[in-house]
Amino acid sequence: MKDISRNLTMLCDFYELTMSNGYFQCGFKDKITYFDVFYRSNPDNGGYAIVAGLEQVVEYINNLHFDDDDIAYLRSRNCFSEEFLEYLKDFKFTGDIWAIPEGTVVFPGEPLMTVRAKAIEAQFIETYILMMINHQSLIATKAARLARAAKGRPISEFGSRRAQGSDAAILGARAAYIGGCSGTACTISDIAYGVPATGTMAHSWVQMFDNEYTAFKTYCQTYPENATLLIDTYNVLESGVPNAIRAFNEVLKPLGITKCGVRLDSGDITYLTKKVREMLDAAGWTECKIVVSNSLDEYIIRELIRQGACVDAFGVGERLITSLSAPVFGGVYKLVAVEREDGTIQPKIKISENVGKITTPHFKKIYRLRGKTTGKAEADVICLHDEVIDDSQPYEIFDPEHTWKRKIMTDYTATELMVPIFKDGVQVYELPGIEQIKEHCQEELAGMWEEVRRFTNPHKYYVDLSQKLWDIKHEMLRKRH
Amino acid sequence: MKDISRNLTMLCDFYELTMSNGYFQCGFKDKITYFDVFYRSNPDNGGYAIVAGLEQVVEYINNLHFDDDDIAYLRSRNCFSEEFLEYLKDFKFTGDIWAIPEGTVVFPGEPLMTVRAKAIEAQFIETYILMMINHQSLIATKAARLARAAKGRPISEFGSRRAQGSDAAILGARAAYIGGCSGTACTISDIAYGVPATGTMAHSWVQMFDNEYTAFKTYCQTYPENATLLIDTYNVLESGVPNAIRAFNEVLKPLGITKCGVRLDSGDITYLTKKVREMLDAAGWTECKIVVSNSLDEYIIRELIRQGACVDAFGVGERLITSLSAPVFGGVYKLVAVEREDGTIQPKIKISENVGKITTPHFKKIYRLRGKTTGKAEADVICLHDEVIDDSQPYEIFDPEHTWKRKIMTDYTATELMVPIFKDGVQVYELPGIEQIKEHCQEELAGMWEEVRRFTNPHKYYVDLSQKLWDIKHEMLRKRH
Repeated sequence: MKDISRNLTMLCDFYELTMSNGYFQCGFKDKITYFDVFYRSNPDNGGYAIVAGLEQVVEYINNLHFDDDDIAYLRSRNCFSEEFLEYLKDFKFTGDIWAIPEGTVVFPGEPLMTVRAKAIEAQFIETYILMMINHQSLIATKAARLARAAKGRPISEFGSRRAQGSDAAILGARAAYIGGCSGTACTISDIAYGVPATGTMAHSWVQMFDNEYTAFKTYCQTYPENATLLIDTYNVLESGVPNAIRAFNEVLKPLGITKCGVRLDSGDITYLTKKVREMLDAAGWTECKIVVSNSLDEYIIRELIRQGACVDAFGVGERLITSLSAPVFGGVYKLVAVEREDGTIQPKIKISENVGKITTPHFKKIYRLRGKTTGKAEADVICLHDEVIDDSQPYEIFDPEHTWKRKIMTDYTATELMVPIFKDGVQVYELPGIEQIKEHCQEELAGMWEEVRRFTNPHKYYVDLSQKLWDIKHEMLRKRH
Repeated sequence: MKDISRNLTMLCDFYELTMSNGYFQCGFKDKITYFDVFYRSNPDNGGYAIVAGLEQVVEYINNLHFDDDDIAYLRSRNCFSEEFLEYLKDFKFTGDIWAIPEGTVVFPGEPLMTVRAKAIEAQFIETYILMMINHQSLIATKAARLARAAKGRPISEFGSRRAQGSDAAILGARAAYIGGCSGTACTISDIAYGVPATGTMAHSWVQMFDNEYTAFKTYCQTYPENATLLIDTYNVLESGVPNAIRAFNEVLKPLGITKCGVRLDSGDITYLTKKVREMLDAAGWTECKIVVSNSLDEYIIRELIRQGACVDAFGVGERLITSLSAPVFGGVYKLVAVEREDGTIQPKIKISENVGKITTPHFKKIYRLRGKTTGKAEADVICLHDEVIDDSQPYEIFDPEHTWKRKIMTDYTATELMVPIFKDGVQVYELPGIEQIKEHCQEELAGMWEEVRRFTNPHKYYVDLSQKLWDIKHEMLRKRH
């Protein structure tokens, strides 16, 4: 893999620095704090999200350091103490991080990551962690939705040219692959992250030649094993398909090649693909795949398939790479506890006029409860870090808002979702390869009930609090009011 | 400025490489081609866009080269000829580029950039150019809309944590500044691009202390010159404002400081800011600024001001950094001409079932016609590269779709919009500094009629073709059908 990373330590909101200098000045430098990353609602009113971006967070934490020119810049701002700037020279992350592995199905309100570190260290890394988890989770979730809509047909990520900057293209392709795409058009994502890159031709190829037939024939001669011809530069049915068939007949047939493809990037996809399929089949090119790519999203793909469009594979561009219909994954990073000097944990809560913005305090962990016979996930339970759910015993879950709604779980397994990533600043988690993450994501989705995965009015998956955690949270709310 | 660039030569759609290898194989390597960058509609149904991203395109072109590991990767794909890989080893851009300078107001259908280069060179750079121009133009345009809504109140870009990857944050902040923001929260954008970075505190600062008052007092002591306090962690009116006033009185007043600020990040902004203003004024803190930041966009800002909200400055996050309501700027890169062996230009056109997708062929330039007395832009005219509009003479413009709609321009100036950027692969354009670009953008906006700038049903600015160009295009269309 090619290393394309850079030192992005300074990709932080300026207030992380002003606060850090403040913590330093007022003696909070070594105060141990706990921050949670969580999000409040699923993109596209979906029933779940796919978490991604952890690998890049790990790289970032490992590389965290202030260069001399960073320090010089900060000094020039005339608001940081020399002692603080001196301290930054040897700054590194020395805390602990737990996180839910990439590719896991996650739900609103549960910690995707917990950071336990000295105040300055924990505060400083907020911006980058959020950006990375928000971006890749957004795209992985969108890709999972697209893959579901396509019902097994491969989807290629095609959106680099419409991506919001380089990393949106490069890591967007990574996240899309994790979520369910079969590959990308973005070459550097293959070199740097092992996302299979593919591609054939643009309209410019066809235009470059004196006529479409010559363009197609030349392409087939150059890539007989991988000839997917773009058939909509002039007229799909009158020119594109006849010329493609002629080129296939003249170049591929003598070589005994039966696998090839055509791509449609405009027009009435359902109508055209049915006609194109007929024409290809009538000419004996039954193994010729029809690839379609024209402002697609999960809803259009679902509809095309419902209409009986003859499509073997999809290319999805801007609506995947920007998650156009929901371009923000709203992860936040909130202080949930501090340690007192005696090492005991003092939970912290953020009240808000908006009830939905009230945080769940304390150092926590999450269990996922799965039915033993169904294998399906039934509920997640957020509990205190030192609570244990013994899945050999019945366990009562309840709705944290409507607490009279209760259910006794039996015949289930309880698995912790977060795993240790850093311990005392040292990476203790072995990063899985991208294929492993992708596979994990598929298993995760297979482990969810259909009702959670569907697009329209999905079932709200249970994310409950343990009785102990619920009691602590409500006691804190009572005291505030 | 800190250099945070990387070699992104391989940030290209794979088909740029398969096509390039094809051009190489079939003898088109040195064929001179012309490609235009243009877009088809303004984001958010607006009346215009602001073009941005040229500086990064120039850097990319200057740095373009294939590393050994890039070549090794391509070889491993088993579809490129050794001659082509050998050729890539010394690959560089040797062509010409013209572009509209950053910060200029632009309109659908006109070339933002024209590339004249050998087929492979011109083809290969498509993905990166589009990505960069699309992303930064999108954000600059959104920022211009926000700035308009804010009616002179400064707007800070706050969105790094919700950005779609690192460059979305870093260059998004740059584009937002060009378009009209006053600064950013993203520190590295200041170091790398000179976008002023600012920030004060998050909710975690307030939560870190035993009570809000101590948090505020400590902050004022640390930053007496720049004390903007976040007043909505617990309760704005009952706790936030009284504690802020107490801290200002105890820390700032004895120092003779009258300038300070409070920030609101939730709740009913109009109601709360009116109350907050009253309370601050009653306590003598009339110079205390009220900053607001809660899921804002241009429509909410306009409405807040209409409602009489007492806001001095805005912070805008996700809805700016992702251009949430319209997250794609649909710039495309189309072949418009090739040179024959005798050096004459052969125009190329892309027909489409969708009339709006038909391209305007040929090597072109654009004039902007401005009324001499008003100073306002009246129309842009796209013409052949060797046409000249002599603004001492009347000039007839006409609607390219409804050609009977004609108008004789008199008393006008005609200025070419595109300037030479590269000549024979050498950069001939001196990149302006960011302040200069930002100023140019303000002048550009001031030079547009109010009817073009408004949000609702803006006037469709005239982008016309010269008679010569119109004739060529329509002759080509006639021949095709």
